Amino acid sequence: MSLDRILKAGSVAIIGASNNATKRGYQAIRTLLDEKYRGKIYPVNPKEKIILGLKCYANVSDIDDPVDVVLVATPARTLPAVLEDCGKKGIHGAVVLAGGFGETGSEGRSLEDEMVAVARKHNIRVVGPNTSGMLNLNDNLNLVGLRDAPKGDLALLTQSGNMALTLITEAKMNSQKGFSYYVGVGNEADIKFHEYLEFFENDPATKAILMYVEGMRNGRDFLGQARETTLKKPIILLKSGRSATGKRSAGSHTGALAGISEVAKGAYQSAGIIVIENSDELFPAAETLSNQPPIKNNKVAILADGGGQATIASDILTDLGVAIPELSKKTQTQLRKILPAAASVPNPVDVAGGTDADPSVFADCAEIILQDSNVGGLLIVGLFGGYGIRFAESLALLEENAAHRMGKLVKKNHKPIVLHSLYTPEKTQPLQLLRHYDIPVYASIEIAAKCASVLAEYGKHLHSRHAKQSFTLHWGAKAKAEGEEIIQQVHREGRNALLEHEAKRLFAIHGAPISDDRLAKTADEAVAIAAKISNTVALKIVSPDILHKSDAGGVKIKLNSEEEIRNAFDEIIENAKNFNARADIKGVLVTPMAPEGVEVIVGTKYDDQFGPVIMYGLGGIMVEILKDVSFRVLPISSGEAKKLIEETKSYPILDGARGRPPLDKEALRKLLLLCSDIMEAYPKIEEMDLNPVIVHEKGLSIVDARIILKSN
Amino acid sequence: MSLDRILKAGSVAIIGASNNATKRGYQAIRTLLDEKYRGKIYPVNPKEKIILGLKCYANVSDIDDPVDVVLVATPARTLPAVLEDCGKKGIHGAVVLAGGFGETGSEGRSLEDEMVAVARKHNIRVVGPNTSGMLNLNDNLNLVGLRDAPKGDLALLTQSGNMALTLITEAKMNSQKGFSYYVGVGNEADIKFHEYLEFFENDPATKAILMYVEGMRNGRDFLGQARETTLKKPIILLKSGRSATGKRSAGSHTGALAGISEVAKGAYQSAGIIVIENSDELFPAAETLSNQPPIKNNKVAILADGGGQATIASDILTDLGVAIPELSKKTQTQLRKILPAAASVPNPVDVAGGTDADPSVFADCAEIILQDSNVGGLLIVGLFGGYGIRFAESLALLEENAAHRMGKLVKKNHKPIVLHSLYTPEKTQPLQLLRHYDIPVYASIEIAAKCASVLAEYGKHLHSRHAKQSFTLHWGAKAKAEGEEIIQQVHREGRNALLEHEAKRLFAIHGAPISDDRLAKTADEAVAIAAKISNTVALKIVSPDILHKSDAGGVKIKLNSEEEIRNAFDEIIENAKNFNARADIKGVLVTPMAPEGVEVIVGTKYDDQFGPVIMYGLGGIMVEILKDVSFRVLPISSGEAKKLIEETKSYPILDGARGRPPLDKEALRKLLLLCSDIMEAYPKIEEMDLNPVIVHEKGLSIVDARIILKSN
Repeated sequence: MSLDRILKAGSVAIIGASNNATKRGYQAIRTLLDEKYRGKIYPVNPKEKIILGLKCYANVSDIDDPVDVVLVATPARTLPAVLEDCGKKGIHGAVVLAGGFGETGSEGRSLEDEMVAVARKHNIRVVGPNTSGMLNLNDNLNLVGLRDAPKGDLALLTQSGNMALTLITEAKMNSQKGFSYYVGVGNEADIKFHEYLEFFENDPATKAILMYVEGMRNGRDFLGQARETTLKKPIILLKSGRSATGKRSAGSHTGALAGISEVAKGAYQSAGIIVIENSDELFPAAETLSNQPPIKNNKVAILADGGGQATIASDILTDLGVAIPELSKKTQTQLRKILPAAASVPNPVDVAGGTDADPSVFADCAEIILQDSNVGGLLIVGLFGGYGIRFAESLALLEENAAHRMGKLVKKNHKPIVLHSLYTPEKTQPLQLLRHYDIPVYASIEIAAKCASVLAEYGKHLHSRHAKQSFTLHWGAKAKAEGEEIIQQVHREGRNALLEHEAKRLFAIHGAPISDDRLAKTADEAVAIAAKISNTVALKIVSPDILHKSDAGGVKIKLNSEEEIRNAFDEIIENAKNFNARADIKGVLVTPMAPEGVEVIVGTKYDDQFGPVIMYGLGGIMVEILKDVSFRVLPISSGEAKKLIEETKSYPILDGARGRPPLDKEALRKLLLLCSDIMEAYPKIEEMDLNPVIVHEKGLSIVDARIILKSN
Repeated sequence: MSLDRILKAGSVAIIGASNNATKRGYQAIRTLLDEKYRGKIYPVNPKEKIILGLKCYANVSDIDDPVDVVLVATPARTLPAVLEDCGKKGIHGAVVLAGGFGETGSEGRSLEDEMVAVARKHNIRVVGPNTSGMLNLNDNLNLVGLRDAPKGDLALLTQSGNMALTLITEAKMNSQKGFSYYVGVGNEADIKFHEYLEFFENDPATKAILMYVEGMRNGRDFLGQARETTLKKPIILLKSGRSATGKRSAGSHTGALAGISEVAKGAYQSAGIIVIENSDELFPAAETLSNQPPIKNNKVAILADGGGQATIASDILTDLGVAIPELSKKTQTQLRKILPAAASVPNPVDVAGGTDADPSVFADCAEIILQDSNVGGLLIVGLFGGYGIRFAESLALLEENAAHRMGKLVKKNHKPIVLHSLYTPEKTQPLQLLRHYDIPVYASIEIAAKCASVLAEYGKHLHSRHAKQSFTLHWGAKAKAEGEEIIQQVHREGRNALLEHEAKRLFAIHGAPISDDRLAKTADEAVAIAAKISNTVALKIVSPDILHKSDAGGVKIKLNSEEEIRNAFDEIIENAKNFNARADIKGVLVTPMAPEGVEVIVGTKYDDQFGPVIMYGLGGIMVEILKDVSFRVLPISSGEAKKLIEETKSYPILDGARGRPPLDKEALRKLLLLCSDIMEAYPKIEEMDLNPVIVHEKGLSIVDARIILKSN
């Protein structure tokens, strides 16, 4: 069902309506009346006759006309019965304010499940529970009790009522922006984040979507929806709960799972979402993205009337990964003509007093700079908007002139301008004019620079291709059947972990490069196998009861001679028996030693919020100590596989750092895609671990492989 | 000479005084009059008789009374003559506004040198040139043309006039703070940063020192002064110019050298300076440090009236390295008594509506929390100060009551409170009251949390010991003499690089563990030496013409047999001749192979701003690709040597990560201290490079050593 009936409801019944001014059931009606809601309002309370001049009904069933949505202000325990009444009346939407559900523990969780069951039975969609409410500003449908929220084109979706209040207050105090909708998702018992997102994607009044998220119930559906939405409208998301204490705090707050932060951030970004880390950048980023065109080439020019600010802005943009290209000779020459000799023009452009007597020179400079084809956007830092205060009142008129011209420049060149001004809190006329032209104005250089960078990030996303590329791995019908048989066999034997050679076989039949490993039952067999497959071999215990082979002394490497192999075989069997006397020993795997190269780790696992995810990192200390790993939600595209590899800090090691030959990143990319495909093709697999994989100049070796099946 | 005569001048002559209202020479006098400067003002200009009602002199020599300081508003080229006149008159201070000196290139540099020479001759101390001026607010001595700066206890020292304007405007708009002094240091041609610092350290009106620095002329003197100053007053410093573009921008701006950022940051921090990375945190950090007591134990409690903000604050504090300890059982029990059941009390404390009806409960909570001995300070986040707006006007009175009580709590417990409030821009009465009690109030959670963290950082500094500890290395008189002789010999041979065995010898005679390396002239000699020193050896070419031995094929390792040694010797000699036919080959060094361990790099070099610095990092990819190195200005204390090792990201590798045995960090610490001592004892050494050093479970091996002497 579309959410229109709820978010654009033409009539509202308030369950738990009250004549007591301190009660939410009174305030809700008061707010709807004060804000001039256009629809019909039906107070419901068996103990009252009239509330705020409106007829009060004993039960929703007593209302003659149809009702679109109910606002439920009664306590948690009443909800199943309330929704039962609503169902009978044919109402299909409810906003449930009460806390005391899933966020409080298992008892509350049962009540939440019971409520949802009633809702499902009657086809009622529920916002919340444990929500601050919802707000549709165009219809004055205010079910949140928050007055005077400014109307505008931002939709706001949050897990914290206070964060909503923060953002709305910020909009009012520091911008000319406003909101189309506000929804507090609460516990997401029924309607989930992705459903609201779909609604906002299609809402013509919404230009950008602002989100505060602590944790999600249904990350995969959300990402699927976000991938589509971000191609039409930017989504700006603040993810909190990344620290241990933060997670604890989030848990007690929304009952939400605050999952592994690396997974969440990578997942959101790959869906094109702008992920914000600092709460004070959230609203500015949304304002900028909804007001200004994205930057197509990641290149920004800086225009400053003070050297200090130019230096600071350069540092921040560089940290944020935005390029500050040298301006073309032509641009520099044109700037030189209008600026004093002391000016610096390569980029940053420091006017060196060239605007002191006439701040409209800012617009002249902006015009010249934005025409440079190498420039994707302009960041202005310094005193603009305060010349009338700082130097002479008359200069304010020249600033206004510049503001008009800069507003038009953006539209003409389709390149954004973002402005930092020390005088932002003074809300001077030139600054208000810039805002009128949708040019964002900030008091903090950090925030202004961040806003320029999110325009570049969104521009990059819109211009990147995310199509899934094909590549040649073996996916014949026979291969899949053989793979299923391997898994079935493991099941039949009552195991849930594939043995090393089984896991490797599963990869081999789908075309992965796997060495010619063979199982030996005796030392003689091991010697004979070794003679066939390699000069140097490794031996490894094979037993369903010994998963961590090295810990059990079950691995011997770099064996060259018959004597070494015999000794190793005997030692491994002995160690295994000492480790676990009842271990079922299948034999010893004889495997050729892999050539030298760089060790990496590839794995997949199940994330609570996002389901199957893939992890990649360089082996050894890089993963163990520096945690230099990257994550993506599965399945991944070819482009994402490439990014997974490239975004680790240690990537230059694969890429031939310091004169070493580059290694076979293409083989590695294919292996990541194969992992993705295998996870999709075999839903019974819970997690996989290829550790280590050795990457060579040409090709790679999967030295060890582990696959765990789901237990049910 | 003390700077009192300049910074507290009782009389000012303005050179280049003018009746033209657009000229600086008019505005300066206008400002002094308007701001009611208590001292005497003498306009100087041969073409004028009276300026603004004051008698104008043709030359400073015409003034009868003594003059403390001149403000020079004439162009750069006039300066030598102007200072000559001042010298004759017996004036000992000058503030030089003009640009066109060192920052413009070599010609300007000569003029600057000429001006300084005249100043030195006459004992004149100079502020600037290329400065916005200076300002002493207590004496209304305003030589900067900036009006209405608020008076207070912060001293401001900056390389950017705009940054000063920013900070002063910020103070006026967003705080109740003000300034004791402002000095634009300009080109530091004469008076340097550290001299101003010393003045502010002793100034009773100054409680904290705020600095904006792009680069320094004299980093070592500054650090020496700062080390003393920070024990009495906090220094808060914004260092910009860390990116390549930022450096370029800083260079064109102040002509200052923007040195290696890692060196600068480590250097400042080890002197106890609070280094700020974000410009919007600079003023708040200074406000907080000057108003609130430092946090002694790095432990902060969070008190919130919204779960979202509690979560965000937890994340930020954790990122900043501040601990958020669980409150004691007693504290939690007391909080439970006054808060609703839904409240979360372990820390963060989320009142869960418990303040809605009575915000003075904030003070009750604060009182309970600050009494917990495990808590060093309190960060309050949310809506405090806005209850009168958000809920009911009458609540503002209860908030005022809470503000009074919280102000007193800080003084009673000697533990700080920092407050975030969404309603900060509204400047409500409760918030202004908190400020009256010196409790800082911010609109951004990020900034409030940062301020709590700088209180913890400063507290840590005040409670740490930085005494230089003694340790047992060999510094006998004979050793030093032998070291000098090695260096002299290198000099006599016209070289400036010590050969490997010479460098190792220098370390050995001072007690460093050096292997028994010997020089072989023939393959026979090499075999004979190897037989004596080790089963496995390495051979390395020794030639003053081949510094990068490996690049020239001059190193062979892991040689076990006589045959291997002979072949290696011949090959090395052949490679060396191929590499450079005219190379002076002294022989081949035979050295035992070092036992296994972890490779590290230790080096010293000359930094443009800070002189000799030491670098430490783990070898291999850690340094090459991840740049995981740390720096300190030399000499270092034992504690700093320990920090150098511990602050690298890869430190856990030395510390026995993942069940491995810990390595000999004590030996490594001693080696760092020895490097520091050698650099002090032999001022002729320009730089040293010990690469690699292999650290073992017990002891370490210096595998290669390189020492370069200064060329003059």
